[in-house]
Amino acid sequence: MLEKLAPSLLAGVPSLVKPASDTGYLTQAVVRLIADSGILPDGALQLIMGATGDLLDCLDAQDTVGFTGSAATAMALRSRPSLLQNAVRFTAEQDSLNGSVLGPDIEPGSTEFDLFITEVHREMTTKAGQKCTAIRRIMVPEAHLQAVTAALSERLAATKIGHPAQKETQMGALVSQAQREDVRGKLQLLAGECDVVFGDAQHCVVRGADAKEGAFMSPVLLNCPDPDAAKTVHEIEAFGPVSTVMAYRDVPHAISLLNKGGGSLVASVITHDPQVARQVVLGAGAFHGRLYFNDRVSQAESTGHGAPLPHMVHGGPGRAGGSEELGGLRGVKHFMQRSAIQGSPDMLSAITGIWVTGAAEHVGPAHPFTRSFEALQIGETLHTAAREVTLADIEHFAEFTGDRFYAHMDAKAAKANPFFPDCVAHGYLLLSFAAGLFVEPSPGPVLANTGLNALSFQKPVVAGDCISVQLTVKRKTRRTQAYGEVRWHVALRNQDRDLVAEYELLTMNSYGETKGA
Amino acid sequence: MLEKLAPSLLAGVPSLVKPASDTGYLTQAVVRLIADSGILPDGALQLIMGATGDLLDCLDAQDTVGFTGSAATAMALRSRPSLLQNAVRFTAEQDSLNGSVLGPDIEPGSTEFDLFITEVHREMTTKAGQKCTAIRRIMVPEAHLQAVTAALSERLAATKIGHPAQKETQMGALVSQAQREDVRGKLQLLAGECDVVFGDAQHCVVRGADAKEGAFMSPVLLNCPDPDAAKTVHEIEAFGPVSTVMAYRDVPHAISLLNKGGGSLVASVITHDPQVARQVVLGAGAFHGRLYFNDRVSQAESTGHGAPLPHMVHGGPGRAGGSEELGGLRGVKHFMQRSAIQGSPDMLSAITGIWVTGAAEHVGPAHPFTRSFEALQIGETLHTAAREVTLADIEHFAEFTGDRFYAHMDAKAAKANPFFPDCVAHGYLLLSFAAGLFVEPSPGPVLANTGLNALSFQKPVVAGDCISVQLTVKRKTRRTQAYGEVRWHVALRNQDRDLVAEYELLTMNSYGETKGA
Repeated sequence: MLEKLAPSLLAGVPSLVKPASDTGYLTQAVVRLIADSGILPDGALQLIMGATGDLLDCLDAQDTVGFTGSAATAMALRSRPSLLQNAVRFTAEQDSLNGSVLGPDIEPGSTEFDLFITEVHREMTTKAGQKCTAIRRIMVPEAHLQAVTAALSERLAATKIGHPAQKETQMGALVSQAQREDVRGKLQLLAGECDVVFGDAQHCVVRGADAKEGAFMSPVLLNCPDPDAAKTVHEIEAFGPVSTVMAYRDVPHAISLLNKGGGSLVASVITHDPQVARQVVLGAGAFHGRLYFNDRVSQAESTGHGAPLPHMVHGGPGRAGGSEELGGLRGVKHFMQRSAIQGSPDMLSAITGIWVTGAAEHVGPAHPFTRSFEALQIGETLHTAAREVTLADIEHFAEFTGDRFYAHMDAKAAKANPFFPDCVAHGYLLLSFAAGLFVEPSPGPVLANTGLNALSFQKPVVAGDCISVQLTVKRKTRRTQAYGEVRWHVALRNQDRDLVAEYELLTMNSYGETKGA
Repeated sequence: MLEKLAPSLLAGVPSLVKPASDTGYLTQAVVRLIADSGILPDGALQLIMGATGDLLDCLDAQDTVGFTGSAATAMALRSRPSLLQNAVRFTAEQDSLNGSVLGPDIEPGSTEFDLFITEVHREMTTKAGQKCTAIRRIMVPEAHLQAVTAALSERLAATKIGHPAQKETQMGALVSQAQREDVRGKLQLLAGECDVVFGDAQHCVVRGADAKEGAFMSPVLLNCPDPDAAKTVHEIEAFGPVSTVMAYRDVPHAISLLNKGGGSLVASVITHDPQVARQVVLGAGAFHGRLYFNDRVSQAESTGHGAPLPHMVHGGPGRAGGSEELGGLRGVKHFMQRSAIQGSPDMLSAITGIWVTGAAEHVGPAHPFTRSFEALQIGETLHTAAREVTLADIEHFAEFTGDRFYAHMDAKAAKANPFFPDCVAHGYLLLSFAAGLFVEPSPGPVLANTGLNALSFQKPVVAGDCISVQLTVKRKTRRTQAYGEVRWHVALRNQDRDLVAEYELLTMNSYGETKGA
């Protein structure tokens, strides 16, 4: 729920939350905590319990329906005529047959082998395996099938199942008795292609809770001896602590098995070989919303196979729902309408508040370095005097900085270069002279030059050329209580008005302070 | 068709084209021209005429269906169970009730007034108004309703209808007799809310062609006296040379009328007032895929209300299909799967071929400026010697360049600045010294420094600090037959190894040439 709420709130869009019946109490408790905290304006978050009546039929193209759950419920929602008719945006993040691969380079007993067992065990038992990103298919090199099965079984056997409030409990109950029955039913469907190698879906040892009343269930590890011929193991998901191990021959075979899921939220590979990682990306990238690699190097910082992160796309093609959530700023824009805007540069500047090339430039009442953040106008422009660049300047700059690159020092070698007509001025000499031309030296609102973007040298400058600078206020962004960032468009031109270089200059400028004030 | 083909081919995805029955001959002729030209590999473009059998049921999540046409056909396609079940990507670019607004600032007789009449007339008559982006609703200030109606009627009356092969013909026939009957039927539905102010759907003068056999039709201009109460005029599209004029009171009213279309591909405003443009963007942006502004300034370069452009999003919310096509590189990525990749920096570098922060750096066999484009390895790094920055350096640089900004010259003033502890070195002095440290001066594969990206000054440098540079090969891209672009990560550090500045440096490097070769 929070994965969907955060970007929608950032986009300024209020949300209605509708939990599944089984998770209603939990959702209500979370929403209550949020409401009581007072961090959201009234109405920004609303909760609907139970049936939604004709709510979905009232939606239009300004609404988004974001669903997380089973493929079957997603299908019921996405095929609803009113949603289709009104082109309501619909995203589904469906539980899928996520796979995890033990790399062909990994030997039992190694750091990565233990990491693999840990990750698979965690995905099978966290939330009793009721996670859309849980690992359902475990792919291991043929030679290590027994080692993986043994290590996993040992870890599963040691997993303490019981009352979730007890400290030693490692896995609680499923969400309901009905869910447990569903998982048991799916296991029967898988039984035609898979053998049980660990666990008993009908019995388990429960600590501190009533094994009859609670929907407790042992983890179940299956083995699929012929994953190429098998179908159900790649299609049917038992949404509980259930996963299936299968052997692969080589990396292309592992890729083929991963992709047999018909699209997943995440596929993971535990490998220390970058070439294995590259091979998997090229072969499996189009079938999975996220590809997760982990090894001895990244394990300390890694967030785990099952954790979507805000700056990464979440969602996957096909069986996973064919949607996209999160992904940094994209996650926010999924709740907005992208609209192209055409018009003259002046129109675009007025609409966006950002000066664009070609928009009006105007000279301000004083040097822009003497004007406060607020006083500076978008499009306000300084035209500097011109300065000649002499051969002595170039030679002196080379001597002073140590940059004696041949194109600045040796006319014959410079002329042999496809870019230069003769000895040319250093690019950094031009930037430095430009600053010398546009800077107003006295203390004033400009606090610091913090950086520069997209510098492009357009035309070489040779001895005798005269450069001048045009400095235009492009964009202003408040940053702190004391100062904001000003982005300037800087254009250097020669005596023929040809563009020599252009870039975006960044400064921090204080508020409300003018020269002498 | 070409709007969809170009980005899919750029994405490396072959296409099947299936035209509507009425446009089959034309499509076949275009595809034949493309095939005969030999510009595409065999199979990259295939044409299906007539029914498609079970083709659509064979698609999966690796396929995209891109549709252009009526809302009704789009609905039939998007609700097809196999497409929904397999999460096949579906985009619809539907004809919609696009509107065009004459700005409240425009008077009859002005340049913009003539421009408005020209644009509306063009959209009504080009392809006999059978265009998904055609203007169906014409919104004008109340005071100018008569003037617009008169000017448009005059222009429509002068429009020569006839055989398309004749030079003087300005508008040809509709695509079929059935289409003309459909338009006539839609006109009857609109008759309850609109009056005909120009044209007769049953009769027109036809030049050089048989008015009985050909599906010729007069343009028809309607007037809707009460557009707030009207419904059909905002919902029903007569897909032919038909449009409806309606009066608005003020800009918010015009916005409300524009948005009553329930989502369109494009809305246009002819205005010379940037504040009107801004108001329309804020009020109508969420309801239209493109907002087009035109005036005396942009008219010479403007491509017209009806022309989607490759670098702009095409598509619109709701009634327009709720999809997105084109939009620059986004247009290509619509045919690809976005997949997040997680792993250590070394894994990410191996997968992408781009050095990322934290990935391995290694010292090459010689100075990187002596190594050819091909020889340079991703991650190859030069560590330079250190250079002290003295107060004399700072003062000399200020004198030489003219940049006497107080933070470099006046210790007391610098200390009063929130960013600086004392007099600090100029940022461009640091860049210049950095180049002096890493440049190898002799002629070699490095041809030119063409620019710099994302320069960020991280920490001030004061007199007595020593800086050194780390220069790492980040990315290589072939550009011409003779040379390619190398992007370098540059990090400047002080004597405490604190980062002082970092940026991406761009050079052009020749192929296969090494020092002395």
